[in-house]
Amino acid sequence: MLPVSGYHTDMATSEFGNMIEEGTRLQLQFQKRGGLLPVVVQNCEDGMVLMLGYADPAALQHTLATGYATFYSTSRGKLWTKGETSGDRLQIQEVLVDCDQDSLLYRVEMLGDGACHTTRHTTGTARRSCFYRRIDGSGNELAFLPDCD
Amino acid sequence: MLPVSGYHTDMATSEFGNMIEEGTRLQLQFQKRGGLLPVVVQNCEDGMVLMLGYADPAALQHTLATGYATFYSTSRGKLWTKGETSGDRLQIQEVLVDCDQDSLLYRVEMLGDGACHTTRHTTGTARRSCFYRRIDGSGNELAFLPDCD
Repeated sequence: MLPVSGYHTDMATSEFGNMIEEGTRLQLQFQKRGGLLPVVVQNCEDGMVLMLGYADPAALQHTLATGYATFYSTSRGKLWTKGETSGDRLQIQEVLVDCDQDSLLYRVEMLGDGACHTTRHTTGTARRSCFYRRIDGSGNELAFLPDCD
Repeated sequence: MLPVSGYHTDMATSEFGNMIEEGTRLQLQFQKRGGLLPVVVQNCEDGMVLMLGYADPAALQHTLATGYATFYSTSRGKLWTKGETSGDRLQIQEVLVDCDQDSLLYRVEMLGDGACHTTRHTTGTARRSCFYRRIDGSGNELAFLPDCD
């Protein structure tokens, strides 16, 4: 049973909008977003936002079937289970869907050091989150967050 | 000074990739994502992921200039400051950038009831987060999270 077979293109009626927002049937709006939905990944334990990936129907199906966070890699053009080479897998605790059913939230437990493919210079270990820099006051420079360099 | 003027299309060199990942210059990759970057919005206070929006350069510039979370509305085709009609504004604490510089994280303080445009049936107040349902065990049904119906 695939959860992602319900494509809809007619968004004209408020009744349909209401089903999307208030219903209990999964009707993910892949077509609305060009075939891929953005996926936020959050660490269940401390709430840290770890990364932003994308999912096609097959990636979500694989995630739900295996329990490991899987994405569609837009750079490699294929399915990609985070940690399949590094071992830093992300075990799914729950998958949430937003009001418009056009984005996903994977809430995960981290099985390895980090979710990012980059490494800290000071320790050589994977950075926990891909979001390790913030835009500084000037608005065109970045500053590394503490313990991320 | 706009932080978002640095467009780059040549991703061929690892040196350039390294500047993107390890540099302190903002080089947001709008072109890579069709002109819009996904924006995760997180409540600073408790780490809750509130919504997923999109930003073009003008939306980010407006966000940084005003301190209120602003997006490019893909449904209305224009800038949209969350809460400009409802009053439920999201005040920016910091804006983080990911390793690839192709997604953003707005960390915010909530000035109103919620970040979602939908309302709880039981209270009539805005839902705090747009992610109020999870995919249930069967994989094609949704279940409302506690205190979200």
